[in-house]
Amino acid sequence: MQKSDLLNCHKRIAPYIHRTPVLTSRILNILSGADIYFKCENFQKIGAFKMRGAANAILQLSEEEKEKGVVTHSSGNFAQALALAAQNLGIKAYIVMPSNAASVKKEAVKGYGGEIIECEPTPAARELAAKNIEENKGAIFIHPFDNSDVILGQGTACIELLEEHPDLDAVFAPIGGGGLISGTALAAHFFSEKCKTFGGEPYEVDDAYRSLQSGKIERNLTINTIADGLRTHLGELNFPIIRQHVDSIIRVTEDEIIEAMKLIWERMKIIVEPSSAVAFAALLKEKEKFRNKKVGIILSGGNVDLTDLPF
Amino acid sequence: MQKSDLLNCHKRIAPYIHRTPVLTSRILNILSGADIYFKCENFQKIGAFKMRGAANAILQLSEEEKEKGVVTHSSGNFAQALALAAQNLGIKAYIVMPSNAASVKKEAVKGYGGEIIECEPTPAARELAAKNIEENKGAIFIHPFDNSDVILGQGTACIELLEEHPDLDAVFAPIGGGGLISGTALAAHFFSEKCKTFGGEPYEVDDAYRSLQSGKIERNLTINTIADGLRTHLGELNFPIIRQHVDSIIRVTEDEIIEAMKLIWERMKIIVEPSSAVAFAALLKEKEKFRNKKVGIILSGGNVDLTDLPF
Repeated sequence: MQKSDLLNCHKRIAPYIHRTPVLTSRILNILSGADIYFKCENFQKIGAFKMRGAANAILQLSEEEKEKGVVTHSSGNFAQALALAAQNLGIKAYIVMPSNAASVKKEAVKGYGGEIIECEPTPAARELAAKNIEENKGAIFIHPFDNSDVILGQGTACIELLEEHPDLDAVFAPIGGGGLISGTALAAHFFSEKCKTFGGEPYEVDDAYRSLQSGKIERNLTINTIADGLRTHLGELNFPIIRQHVDSIIRVTEDEIIEAMKLIWERMKIIVEPSSAVAFAALLKEKEKFRNKKVGIILSGGNVDLTDLPF
Repeated sequence: MQKSDLLNCHKRIAPYIHRTPVLTSRILNILSGADIYFKCENFQKIGAFKMRGAANAILQLSEEEKEKGVVTHSSGNFAQALALAAQNLGIKAYIVMPSNAASVKKEAVKGYGGEIIECEPTPAARELAAKNIEENKGAIFIHPFDNSDVILGQGTACIELLEEHPDLDAVFAPIGGGGLISGTALAAHFFSEKCKTFGGEPYEVDDAYRSLQSGKIERNLTINTIADGLRTHLGELNFPIIRQHVDSIIRVTEDEIIEAMKLIWERMKIIVEPSSAVAFAALLKEKEKFRNKKVGIILSGGNVDLTDLPF
């Protein structure tokens, strides 16, 4: 992937996304010792950065492909993102969701015109269900993160951040499947001379950290983290980009995630989901290393169940 | 009070406050039928609009007065606001707080260098305690809302809103003691040809509504509302301004406040306190009247106890 791919992607999706604000907090700067620029993808359409990648993937389809529609499997933000991105272009979207997905999430997908196909809550069942739609309906499968167009789309948040703050020393993003971090790392590589990319990952789902250690894709043994957006496995396309362009991955405990989330809510008065707090928690964990540095943090999203908060 | 008083006030306090952003929400526009511009004082210093009035009052003091310090009684946002505004100018601030005030609020006041004087949690006790400080220390008493300089300061949020959106048809603010609504109404009167001011008030503390009905200041019989910032009585200086410049007051139930608060949190991903939600709830209550109108809403603050949420 080249710099021009990222630039073209950003231009392509601009009419379909918000250019989200970059916020700062005097108190969180004092607490961390760094000069932090929070890129607020919690204010993005559907409440998360996923809208960027979904829009780019759909806009890349040929006219014939668009007529057939798209399909994905997701119980989270990508389900809503693909449904809305498809609706914007008058394209049919089939969303495979586990039968135990929260009804609020199903309603949101329906609200964006997506057709939900329920399946058993196992990876095998959802892959099979998506495969069936591909074969029976001819719909194009769009993976939530293991897809080059999706990766490029997710990288555009960091492009915007660097446009406004070209002298960042570092940028942090959370790591789940690796869509956001790989896009971010590519953007930092192509749009900055000095900005290094750091990943934040919960100890409980540290497959990316272990994959960098061993040199091959490792699997999570549990998904026992509050950061529900990060419970997925690292993607095949994402791993080599992370190996090449991510400086290091910093792991954080569940308590550190909750504490970082509470700090952002209380001090910045904005709602971020636990996955977003993982990136900030990672900075706090190694704050000595970033003292007096200019640091960007991608706040990935703000979709939380207000009736089930950890504090 | 003249237009020039408001203009001079805004200029005077500008270095000491944030120019807060104005946010919009497609979903909340659809839900309400109006075109809403949210003025986000939840992002103001100390997390509420109170910083504006406190800064203006302190900046108006003579040099001799500044040397003697200031005193107020407040268990809420004005306590923090006066402490920080005083600290900014190297002035001593005595803050009378009830003995049962939340410790997080006391800590915040101390964090801004305020000296706390505890008193029994009754209006009589706090007035006596403040009076003692006035007499013994010579400190200047600054009332949280029943003070012209405070009223002018609170009006500057609406000035900024009208600078960015000069064609507003209406502006909403919550009513507690009346500082914010009277400042807002003055700003709308002087800075717009057509913008009318509406107040939102909980049924449980509807003293301002009843005062407008009877033509004299009425008292609240209970303070049984979740909107903790609105539990005070209407001020003497505030009432005539409200009578003259506020179009009407719309009352809302506790359930309507909580529902409006949840909508703002979930849809806008920002944290607002219940008092802010009162203004939005009032618009929703009479939304037919504001269909297709351009409406400003002053989101008064974002200081909430995250461990004690109503949803």
